[in-house]
Amino acid sequence: MLLDKEGFIIDIDGVVGKSKTPIVEGVEAVKRLKKIGKKIIFVSNNSTRSRRILLDRLKSFGLEVTEEEILIATYATARFIAGEKPGAKVFTTGEKGLIEELELAGLRLVDYDEAEYLVVGSNRGINFDLLTRALRACLRGIRYVATNPDRIFPSEDGPIPGTGMIIGALYWMTGREPDVIVGKPSKVIMEEALKVLGLKPGEVAVVGDQIDVDVAAGKSIGADTVLVLTGVTTRDNLQQMIEKHGIEPDYILESLNSIFEG
Amino acid sequence: MLLDKEGFIIDIDGVVGKSKTPIVEGVEAVKRLKKIGKKIIFVSNNSTRSRRILLDRLKSFGLEVTEEEILIATYATARFIAGEKPGAKVFTTGEKGLIEELELAGLRLVDYDEAEYLVVGSNRGINFDLLTRALRACLRGIRYVATNPDRIFPSEDGPIPGTGMIIGALYWMTGREPDVIVGKPSKVIMEEALKVLGLKPGEVAVVGDQIDVDVAAGKSIGADTVLVLTGVTTRDNLQQMIEKHGIEPDYILESLNSIFEG
Repeated sequence: MLLDKEGFIIDIDGVVGKSKTPIVEGVEAVKRLKKIGKKIIFVSNNSTRSRRILLDRLKSFGLEVTEEEILIATYATARFIAGEKPGAKVFTTGEKGLIEELELAGLRLVDYDEAEYLVVGSNRGINFDLLTRALRACLRGIRYVATNPDRIFPSEDGPIPGTGMIIGALYWMTGREPDVIVGKPSKVIMEEALKVLGLKPGEVAVVGDQIDVDVAAGKSIGADTVLVLTGVTTRDNLQQMIEKHGIEPDYILESLNSIFEG
Repeated sequence: MLLDKEGFIIDIDGVVGKSKTPIVEGVEAVKRLKKIGKKIIFVSNNSTRSRRILLDRLKSFGLEVTEEEILIATYATARFIAGEKPGAKVFTTGEKGLIEELELAGLRLVDYDEAEYLVVGSNRGINFDLLTRALRACLRGIRYVATNPDRIFPSEDGPIPGTGMIIGALYWMTGREPDVIVGKPSKVIMEEALKVLGLKPGEVAVVGDQIDVDVAAGKSIGADTVLVLTGVTTRDNLQQMIEKHGIEPDYILESLNSIFEG
């Protein structure tokens, strides 16, 4: 039974909100889960915001959460690198939110020619100079970590490039792909979530709206997976999505609140 | 015999100049070829300059050439599209030199949502907004033409991204590659060169310093190919380059001027 699980690893977009608008059933469900003593952690592939910024977003949805209940790709990336090499010198393509988390983790931000790590994250201020520096960092052969593999991000006025744009540009130019991708569906961010929760894969359920991202991430650590139909996957495209990605969620719910039915 | 050819299709960088510095033997050779009545055309993959700008560069090397003797990827791209669909509406990622040639060819520059063609060329002013527009044009499925496939460009202070950076970013995000690539080693620009010269492949030699670019382009139209060792290919790396690319030039010369020896 899903409600026997001690912890829930929950995606934000498509589960408790759509961009700046709350998804009422999702928000309600999280409140109820917390009330009955479940541990929860929100996991987001966002590579431009810090936990602080995301916390404000969740609070605006009416959710009382703490920074410890948020695991965002920026923060997970910083933690991962600091775990491998404390105080490492990093060059990043990322913007403020990522830089903030890298610095908070005690990493040193330097230019491409001094760096021990290339950290690729999306940047709405990307330009030719930054791409040139990333290219040169990549050519130096230093360890290369990407916050997430997202190719396209659905913004309010249409599709915009995700972090994958930079990954793709570097791949085409140098033949290199990231040594490590932190965000979903990678197990790196999932293992980080388990560590924060202090739970084992069998003790948690992973909840999200995307089969190839959230469900795949849950499967990567062998956890039970819950697909909700409040985001990109709907009743209409469900079968097609399952066939396309060749992945079956353990549970399929209309919304996260359906967890309390039956 | 090479000197029996009526026309010469000649690469610029590494043959008659290196960036802003002339290669004396190459310049001398072109002057002599012209003096004995050979037809010549310079072919360049440059995607940011117009013919006018390149003409000034060649004049600064001491070469008396006309616009008709220059075929640059910007101009060849504009000609190619205007040949397929006169007056077509195009959206381009490119910068001034490309825009100038597209307009001179009678094409209409529009935004991504109106365009019939996506024209990808390098742009040192690239930014998130321009990449977003290119992404959306690509997703619309319109015909997609790239000026050249160059991945990395060797600038004076180190490697910088070529047009391939944008091609790679779009490929990673959408799975689409250009429908047509104009620049070398594509045969599109070579066929354009033959058209301008009014000659057949058997009547020309294709000269350049890069096996995978210039020699491959020459082979694509079945012309005789001449590799010169005044650019990226040298006596030292020659054998390695031939093996790496699996392409044998018909002639290998120390410099283009060696064409007059023996």
